[in-house]
Amino acid sequence: MRQSHFFVQTLREVPAEAEVPSHRLMLRAGMIRQVVSGVYTYLPLGYRVLRKIEAIVREEMDRAGAQELLLPAVQPASLWQESGRWEDYGKELLRFEDRHERLLVLGPTHEEVITDLVRNEVRSYRQLPVTLYQIQTKFRDEVRPRFGVMRAREFIMKDAYSFDVDWEGLDRSYQAMYRAYERVFRRCGLEFRAVQADPGAIGGEGGSHEFMVLSEVGEDSILVCPHCEYAANVERAEARVPAPQAAARVPEKDRFLTPGAKTIEDLRIQYGLEPEMIIKVLIYRADGRPVAAVVRGDHEVNEIKLRRLLGVRQLELADEQAVRALTGTGFGSVGPMDLGIERVVDDAVAAMPEGIAGGNEPDVHYRHVVPGRDFQWEKQGDIRTARAGDLCVRCGTALEEYRGIEVGHVFKLGTKYSEALSASFLDEQGIQRTVIMGCYGIGVSRLVAAAVEQHHDDKGIIWPMAIAPFHVHILPVSVKDSGQRNTAEALYDRLTEAGVEALLDDRDERPGVKFNDADLMGMPIQVIVGKRVADGMVEIKWRRTGDVELLPVEDAIGRVTAAVRNP
Amino acid sequence: MRQSHFFVQTLREVPAEAEVPSHRLMLRAGMIRQVVSGVYTYLPLGYRVLRKIEAIVREEMDRAGAQELLLPAVQPASLWQESGRWEDYGKELLRFEDRHERLLVLGPTHEEVITDLVRNEVRSYRQLPVTLYQIQTKFRDEVRPRFGVMRAREFIMKDAYSFDVDWEGLDRSYQAMYRAYERVFRRCGLEFRAVQADPGAIGGEGGSHEFMVLSEVGEDSILVCPHCEYAANVERAEARVPAPQAAARVPEKDRFLTPGAKTIEDLRIQYGLEPEMIIKVLIYRADGRPVAAVVRGDHEVNEIKLRRLLGVRQLELADEQAVRALTGTGFGSVGPMDLGIERVVDDAVAAMPEGIAGGNEPDVHYRHVVPGRDFQWEKQGDIRTARAGDLCVRCGTALEEYRGIEVGHVFKLGTKYSEALSASFLDEQGIQRTVIMGCYGIGVSRLVAAAVEQHHDDKGIIWPMAIAPFHVHILPVSVKDSGQRNTAEALYDRLTEAGVEALLDDRDERPGVKFNDADLMGMPIQVIVGKRVADGMVEIKWRRTGDVELLPVEDAIGRVTAAVRNP
Repeated sequence: MRQSHFFVQTLREVPAEAEVPSHRLMLRAGMIRQVVSGVYTYLPLGYRVLRKIEAIVREEMDRAGAQELLLPAVQPASLWQESGRWEDYGKELLRFEDRHERLLVLGPTHEEVITDLVRNEVRSYRQLPVTLYQIQTKFRDEVRPRFGVMRAREFIMKDAYSFDVDWEGLDRSYQAMYRAYERVFRRCGLEFRAVQADPGAIGGEGGSHEFMVLSEVGEDSILVCPHCEYAANVERAEARVPAPQAAARVPEKDRFLTPGAKTIEDLRIQYGLEPEMIIKVLIYRADGRPVAAVVRGDHEVNEIKLRRLLGVRQLELADEQAVRALTGTGFGSVGPMDLGIERVVDDAVAAMPEGIAGGNEPDVHYRHVVPGRDFQWEKQGDIRTARAGDLCVRCGTALEEYRGIEVGHVFKLGTKYSEALSASFLDEQGIQRTVIMGCYGIGVSRLVAAAVEQHHDDKGIIWPMAIAPFHVHILPVSVKDSGQRNTAEALYDRLTEAGVEALLDDRDERPGVKFNDADLMGMPIQVIVGKRVADGMVEIKWRRTGDVELLPVEDAIGRVTAAVRNP
Repeated sequence: MRQSHFFVQTLREVPAEAEVPSHRLMLRAGMIRQVVSGVYTYLPLGYRVLRKIEAIVREEMDRAGAQELLLPAVQPASLWQESGRWEDYGKELLRFEDRHERLLVLGPTHEEVITDLVRNEVRSYRQLPVTLYQIQTKFRDEVRPRFGVMRAREFIMKDAYSFDVDWEGLDRSYQAMYRAYERVFRRCGLEFRAVQADPGAIGGEGGSHEFMVLSEVGEDSILVCPHCEYAANVERAEARVPAPQAAARVPEKDRFLTPGAKTIEDLRIQYGLEPEMIIKVLIYRADGRPVAAVVRGDHEVNEIKLRRLLGVRQLELADEQAVRALTGTGFGSVGPMDLGIERVVDDAVAAMPEGIAGGNEPDVHYRHVVPGRDFQWEKQGDIRTARAGDLCVRCGTALEEYRGIEVGHVFKLGTKYSEALSASFLDEQGIQRTVIMGCYGIGVSRLVAAAVEQHHDDKGIIWPMAIAPFHVHILPVSVKDSGQRNTAEALYDRLTEAGVEALLDDRDERPGVKFNDADLMGMPIQVIVGKRVADGMVEIKWRRTGDVELLPVEDAIGRVTAAVRNP
């Protein structure tokens, strides 16, 4: 491609709305442009990267035995009503009416549509297992789209769905996808971790993993054990509960006054109380009913865990007025003792030998409160958010925390959708059974941004060879110099013939402009054709290291071709 | 692909809703399934065809110098308000609000979005010309979707847009796309005609052509001159106006009674009046004001031509009550004389030496009415629908009529969008000028149906090699016979290695079922592995002709490979 004809405009200014490097660089390099909040155009430079990632995804899906199809973007509301997600999915699901006032949605995901297809097509165990996938534009009406294509409303996703006769089959299908995902992200040149995850709005009974590209700007926190294999999204991560200490004799509980203290931090600063010694109570409304979540003062309630433990859909913190009505006191002095509402106690609280707790009257706390002696509870479990320094549930090593960009997510759905939509088959004995499902997503457009986050410097993008829009950027320093121009054109022709994708900067621009643009656009190799062309020499610059080599033209062709074929 | 693992179910029954062969066959062969009215899933068999057509389109676009990008499906209403199509486009444009109550549309076409892009990116004549294209899912809320993917609401389109500095540039860009379209449809194995067309809702000043695949089930009528190159959509087609006859002396106009005649047909049957001698008047409301369209009794008013001649947006026939109020009489006796409303006279009427016309009083007509003598008019032009037998405007030969499926449409837009959205550039003299645009569409998913319409028989589909889902269907007659099974597997491996796409019917089914399915699914070549495999012989069946050849296995591999490489 000759740059003089290529539809690309680099920007010198950093666009104000771009907060993270990938967003800034993708705008500046001329890869994307916003059309409306969270909705982007992929310009030719950006689209080339997208197509390369799509090709890698497609190859690995096909290699794993998945079959490609294309489901519609527009879906009937009736299928979502059937699955129950019409109510559950929230405002991210874009709903509209057609001209005949039929309710439709713009698909944010396709479990319903594919389950409907399979219930109509599959009759017998002989048609299973099967894994189907598609690469498609999806829409989720995010409340706050940001970071460019990283969290867009319209985005491209590869979604796959597996259908098996039993859970063992699902395990195999899941493993095949899991391994395919590892290959995809590795081939894209990304450093990533597969972590245990919460299934969220997709649901399912069998667990799930997220594939996280490690990056400071990632919106997810993940906890990783440096010793064993354990890794999990912080939403999901467990931590080892400290062993209950030997029950030394604890004195009777002891009332004391704490005027002015509304928070754990107030108790620490004003009264010198250590947060890990405090028993903290938060009042929630869980599907309408009041619930008291009891955690250690230095811990945070993990609402995802709490919701799952309670088996409720809606969970929200009660406001102070409601707390006062329920407990007789306001924020700061609510405690677990003599509390007339359901208590859910975190395992770490249950393991405390004693603690300090609110007295359920204003400005009153108690010392020497012993869980189990001074108060009981209705439910117990892991309801707190794990954090760096907590001990790995598997091996006890201190966990480390990273930020990650979620680029893939695999789910063992089980029968969540196949049961709701009655997708069944006849087994070998002629008995009707429910199909066991898995589902598997890759954020194809998000991968572009994730790759830029991991591969850039202060000058611009540094593409991994496999997903670079072009392999090589040929830069004649002055196109007015016929020797340089001719050599650059010859290089372009020779490399193109050899199957190398070359971008030739044939613009009549100052060398500084060309070099800056080349660094910004980030092709892995630059071939600089300057004055030394008089001696038959050109420079190869490796974008990642900045290393420059002066070589005869012929050798340069060989070096570039070899680097493209064996990156 | 082994058929036992392939996600495809053929249907024996002809689905009731399918009216045309392509719809029936695509359902029966397991290529598509409807999800909701006009919205389809492409199953793996159908998606393979779609991908092949996409690849051909992409190759020819790239070869023509167009650059691929991806515009969003979701667009802001503001751009449509800016272009004026927010009001003009009608109910096919799906409009909705997002969670923040911003008005959005689901793109039925992308002139606005691309013009917005270009006005932001292009500053100088040096950046032009450029042609940009995308392959994308679009949505048009058709009032009556039908014929499967032929007239669907959600469909896949290739849309391209050219941007030039002047009209000569547009001519070149248009020609490049026109030729690329010819190559695309030829490569897809289609018999088609490029015809002059009406620009419809896309608009534009510079003319347009439709690419029509000839087919009995086509929804468009086209008129083609068998002598010269002239071909046009009936909406647009002109016909030569008969030369005015030598003005023989015509008697004074003569009143006569025609009780009971409400239509041209009544006048013919009850009074023996020849339709081509009658002067017919239809009353319209054109943007609200009344207009009388005057055509010959055997001609039909072409409302597209009438609307263009009048330069109005809305045109609708007045009902009988309104006609009575305007003319003093009802349907059947309205005439052009002493009519107090604007008259638009068709050229063929103006050329009549005399005619019979309504008298604007009930049950009254006049003979010997001479246009120009007995009545005048405010506007004259070609406002009738041409038809088979009319004379070619270019060479005078009688036109022939065909049915066509519109698979492509190219438009010289000129400045319709670039002016409305102020897309301009600085020319060599530094003067600001408006970009000259063209736009170019291919109905990618409709092409699949059009190909099936042209290539099928009563047994099923007969794929052209270039877009066949698989090149060859290998059919072991009995998979229980180890000789047949092993030979079929060996053929499958050898052909796959040679780059031939093979579908191996390894199902344990009766031979009749396999043969019927193979004919229905329509791969161009079948290799039947039956009893003669004992002698090392297999049969090749050519799906199109039904010819069968018995060949040694080795020769069969050679024949198939050669046929795939040079179809």
